[in-house]
Amino acid sequence: MGSIKIGLIGAGRIGRLHAANLRYRVSGAEIVAVADVFPEAAERCAQELSIPSALDDPRRILDDPQVDAVFICTSTDTHASLIEQAAEAGKNIFCEKPIALDLPTIDRALATVKRAGVLLQIGFNRRFDPNFRRAHDLVAGGKIGRPHVLRITSRDPEPPPPEYVKVSGGIFLDMMIHDFDMARYLMQDDVVEVYASGAVLIDPRIGELGDVDTAVVTLRFKSGALGLIDNSRRAVYGYDQRAEVFGEKGTIVVSNPKPDTTVLSGSEGDRSSALYHFFTDRYMDAYVAEVKSFIHTIEKGEPPLVSGRDGKIPVVMGYAAKLSLAENRPVRLDEIDPGLNL
Amino acid sequence: MGSIKIGLIGAGRIGRLHAANLRYRVSGAEIVAVADVFPEAAERCAQELSIPSALDDPRRILDDPQVDAVFICTSTDTHASLIEQAAEAGKNIFCEKPIALDLPTIDRALATVKRAGVLLQIGFNRRFDPNFRRAHDLVAGGKIGRPHVLRITSRDPEPPPPEYVKVSGGIFLDMMIHDFDMARYLMQDDVVEVYASGAVLIDPRIGELGDVDTAVVTLRFKSGALGLIDNSRRAVYGYDQRAEVFGEKGTIVVSNPKPDTTVLSGSEGDRSSALYHFFTDRYMDAYVAEVKSFIHTIEKGEPPLVSGRDGKIPVVMGYAAKLSLAENRPVRLDEIDPGLNL
Amino acid sequence: MGSIKIGLIGAGRIGRLHAANLRYRVSGAEIVAVADVFPEAAERCAQELSIPSALDDPRRILDDPQVDAVFICTSTDTHASLIEQAAEAGKNIFCEKPIALDLPTIDRALATVKRAGVLLQIGFNRRFDPNFRRAHDLVAGGKIGRPHVLRITSRDPEPPPPEYVKVSGGIFLDMMIHDFDMARYLMQDDVVEVYASGAVLIDPRIGELGDVDTAVVTLRFKSGALGLIDNSRRAVYGYDQRAEVFGEKGTIVVSNPKPDTTVLSGSEGDRSSALYHFFTDRYMDAYVAEVKSFIHTIEKGEPPLVSGRDGKIPVVMGYAAKLSLAENRPVRLDEIDPGLNL
Amino acid sequence: MGSIKIGLIGAGRIGRLHAANLRYRVSGAEIVAVADVFPEAAERCAQELSIPSALDDPRRILDDPQVDAVFICTSTDTHASLIEQAAEAGKNIFCEKPIALDLPTIDRALATVKRAGVLLQIGFNRRFDPNFRRAHDLVAGGKIGRPHVLRITSRDPEPPPPEYVKVSGGIFLDMMIHDFDMARYLMQDDVVEVYASGAVLIDPRIGELGDVDTAVVTLRFKSGALGLIDNSRRAVYGYDQRAEVFGEKGTIVVSNPKPDTTVLSGSEGDRSSALYHFFTDRYMDAYVAEVKSFIHTIEKGEPPLVSGRDGKIPVVMGYAAKLSLAENRPVRLDEIDPGLNL
Repeated sequence: MGSIKIGLIGAGRIGRLHAANLRYRVSGAEIVAVADVFPEAAERCAQELSIPSALDDPRRILDDPQVDAVFICTSTDTHASLIEQAAEAGKNIFCEKPIALDLPTIDRALATVKRAGVLLQIGFNRRFDPNFRRAHDLVAGGKIGRPHVLRITSRDPEPPPPEYVKVSGGIFLDMMIHDFDMARYLMQDDVVEVYASGAVLIDPRIGELGDVDTAVVTLRFKSGALGLIDNSRRAVYGYDQRAEVFGEKGTIVVSNPKPDTTVLSGSEGDRSSALYHFFTDRYMDAYVAEVKSFIHTIEKGEPPLVSGRDGKIPVVMGYAAKLSLAENRPVRLDEIDPGLNL
Repeated sequence: MGSIKIGLIGAGRIGRLHAANLRYRVSGAEIVAVADVFPEAAERCAQELSIPSALDDPRRILDDPQVDAVFICTSTDTHASLIEQAAEAGKNIFCEKPIALDLPTIDRALATVKRAGVLLQIGFNRRFDPNFRRAHDLVAGGKIGRPHVLRITSRDPEPPPPEYVKVSGGIFLDMMIHDFDMARYLMQDDVVEVYASGAVLIDPRIGELGDVDTAVVTLRFKSGALGLIDNSRRAVYGYDQRAEVFGEKGTIVVSNPKPDTTVLSGSEGDRSSALYHFFTDRYMDAYVAEVKSFIHTIEKGEPPLVSGRDGKIPVVMGYAAKLSLAENRPVRLDEIDPGLNL
Repeated sequence: MGSIKIGLIGAGRIGRLHAANLRYRVSGAEIVAVADVFPEAAERCAQELSIPSALDDPRRILDDPQVDAVFICTSTDTHASLIEQAAEAGKNIFCEKPIALDLPTIDRALATVKRAGVLLQIGFNRRFDPNFRRAHDLVAGGKIGRPHVLRITSRDPEPPPPEYVKVSGGIFLDMMIHDFDMARYLMQDDVVEVYASGAVLIDPRIGELGDVDTAVVTLRFKSGALGLIDNSRRAVYGYDQRAEVFGEKGTIVVSNPKPDTTVLSGSEGDRSSALYHFFTDRYMDAYVAEVKSFIHTIEKGEPPLVSGRDGKIPVVMGYAAKLSLAENRPVRLDEIDPGLNL
Repeated sequence: MGSIKIGLIGAGRIGRLHAANLRYRVSGAEIVAVADVFPEAAERCAQELSIPSALDDPRRILDDPQVDAVFICTSTDTHASLIEQAAEAGKNIFCEKPIALDLPTIDRALATVKRAGVLLQIGFNRRFDPNFRRAHDLVAGGKIGRPHVLRITSRDPEPPPPEYVKVSGGIFLDMMIHDFDMARYLMQDDVVEVYASGAVLIDPRIGELGDVDTAVVTLRFKSGALGLIDNSRRAVYGYDQRAEVFGEKGTIVVSNPKPDTTVLSGSEGDRSSALYHFFTDRYMDAYVAEVKSFIHTIEKGEPPLVSGRDGKIPVVMGYAAKLSLAENRPVRLDEIDPGLNL
């Protein structure tokens, strides 16, 4: 088949990142148009990446019959509506996480996608990181037998500004949502109950907004296995992303890759480099791989590796964690969404 | 001063381990008598280690005026009574953990020790492991600023026999009690609330006895910091003992030491040795160091590095974890012991 | 300034690799023409990478006034002649190593470049690897004081076919030449004498061609420091590239980066992935960085990071090693090139 | 059988180290007498370790019929004579390395031992280090197939005083002799030729004495395999002892064990402890294991793991390296000892 024609909706940081990857590191696809509510953003992006058309209205992308697929990289509050419009226009969809911050909206969007029969992939990029993917494959290959305990540590280098925290949905829906997805991916199992603890240890302004900056969550999986996640908004040594799956025949540990392997040994001991600073450094290869996978999936007509349901369940987990924190008690996922049917 | 005269009470595995260390690797002390309710055990121990006197009644050690200090290495149910008798006889006391499995008994024993003015050290050996000790010292030295999150993983190579589980007090009082102590040691802070989850994933007979073989616990510290502990009764790759203290200025990670550093690289990738099999291998140097510290403490008249209160609080934490597991809710330590006064 | 116009000469494996990097991962430059003596190779490359012009004669690139710089990626025997022609045409030059396999030819090419005043960078890509670069920078920053000992291990995953060995100049000029360059780069010093040992342990056909497949070389630096290099044509566990610089204040060790950090621990011990298979995997980022550096150097009018002289000296070292191996004695570099003037 | 009766000859640092290990960490043997030409040294040692008899003349140990075996821990110049006397007295012998610094003396001592039919073990302790031993066992087990290249790095934390250097025989006979032994042990092969380079980079007084403080040596093994050793008299980061055996099916790397596994990560990167300071820390377990092996060997009547010939050959290698350094040319071992018969 010929090259897949992509329309990019949203020319902010993550939109431009995908666009650059599509342009420079992924074959079999080309961006034919970019739209952004800020026309200058669309134009700058188009110019930098030789995209033929820069628009200020995503509708014009959806109405363009040559467009095979769209990348939705706008602000969260517009994701669901754009998914629905794109589905109704018959476009395949790559959408950044989260689909939405309320469940009825998510359900409606997923129902529309289902009716339209288009393909939808959610942007949980960490599933495409070679380190986590290898852990997943080892679990899937039975190398540790039945999984017993999951551990995830995930720490950002610095907290977001309070304005962002205000609209983000809080640490569980904005940050730990990635770990909720990773929990399901690595364990190949669903979570039925969560218990969350949190604290404001880094920035009191985050506490004033009703959020926490440090959080630990216990997970209970359907299989009976248990899980632990800890998050911090500030690790001064860089972007810290580790995981472990322990099971009946062994354990699989994913530690942090580092920018270089060089070690300096002196009279004070050994020193090595700090971690990658943040996600665009650490996960660049994962971003490329997720887009390659999306293109491949369209070409082959296969189901996407991160489905709409995979996009929804971490949001349910996030709400369960929020309620657990507020009431200091374990919360079952079906308390948040009785129809979840795990 | 001359050599400190030790009476050993209990010639089982851990008693003989301490006796061999006192004989061969610790200076400034000598064992003058060993007592065991099984006279043959006492005699065999005396013979192997050239101990002048083998007895079948610990009273005779307590009544011996030349004895400066006793090592209580008997079964748990006799610890408190022997502590009281030894304290009343004016002997300094090294006692294996736990002091007892019920709190009034512990309180009475500690009160007796206090009245008698003798020195009591509890056998939480991991505090003397060079890896954990260095982590403690780095925290104490302010290297990571204020601690935010503690993580401990602790896994045994194989589950104990069901008969042992029955009398052990269960996973929280028998196994995780060490991690509860380590949590207080590494964080230099007290825990005010715990939430425990558990599962029977390894041996159904453990479940039939009302215990779990896999457990994860969330801790809330007095300072507001959070903690996570996970335990498993069976790690097929050996005795797995790791910890991390994360704080405002960095993180400290203690990984497992290994029997050798040798790595074999072949076409299948890299291979290295499994972990030490169990605690006598992993913690041998720690056992020596704790006994050296006890002897040093007596010589210098200093307070012991693991006090009676340090022996009591993990038992309170264990009961809080048991209640939390039974009722699936967070439990405050003062719910278990209103007079704890953390 | 506008985009730098590149002419690519040679559309084989390494030529296409540079072309793809120029197209997709380097900004500020564009390939305007590609030439190859096999017209289909030039055409395929042009088509894949949207290069406007595909030619069968490099002369047409050299005669094209819009071309600012050329990449010489042809077979070794044509490098020197193309360098001279390009220099005379006033083009800046990136040339793959080695410049040539005989010293008078190299000297003549370098003299032509000098006369023409164009910029010449030699393709010693490892200088741009982030691991080795960091080691270099630590040495340059005085972190280990005066260097005392250099160690380099460099092993390929499999031996080249005998036909290649025949024309390659042998292990010292084809393979260890990279390590000779790395020795000068890491030590920031010149080598005055080498002693080489070799053996045929992998493929007897290599021995029949008068070459060895396993070699170790001792280096004596101008400063008095010493060095050791070992090469093997076949490491079954992958492409093994390590280095160490030991000095008065410490040591710097560069170990192999790995495709992932994931470790599987089971009852047999720990396992992790094999190394990257070969240079295009291991050094992809270095290839990008060397081209970026070349473009940057042209833009700024700065001297290149790998000069013509840097391209020549490793060839002298290779001949010294060959003579040393043949006569089993140490050989000084000025015995090979009396005018070298280190 | 009953306990083996040991006579200790020489109560200096290494003698007391063995004595303490025999007393405290080795079963099946006991020291019945200690002799030293400084009577106070013998007496202090006897008192500290409860040895019944302290003597000033080793003859009295050799004449004592209850003594089964002797430990010769005196200065090097007395080793050979004491070996001969002990052998003639029918005692089994553990002797520190080297046997002597001249080959005829060594040969005479070994001939006497052979005639007497006693057991002689030389104190090459590193063979008993668990890291190197595991490497040896992996090679012996065929895990890497035929060995191709050996690499050893061995660095002391600080140079010895010039007075010591003067009588030591120089870096090849005093320090690298251990690596020569390790080369034979790890490769399970003999060396036929060496080439040595050296430099004075640390202490000019060492140079004034005709010795070097930094040395690299190339080895050629009988099998055709090659080897590299580098030594430095001063590594500011501690006692650095590494090795690698590379072969047709893989490679085995022995890195340095460290005093603890704790890593501190901060904004400057990761830090971990320096290496063990020197050999008594790094090799303590190896010293215990070599003595256990000696006792076991006597008990079982088996050949020792480090024979008299194993003691001699590294001395031959040391002289070959000295000559190579002096004449800057490779030297065959049979040039030093034509009767060596490798």
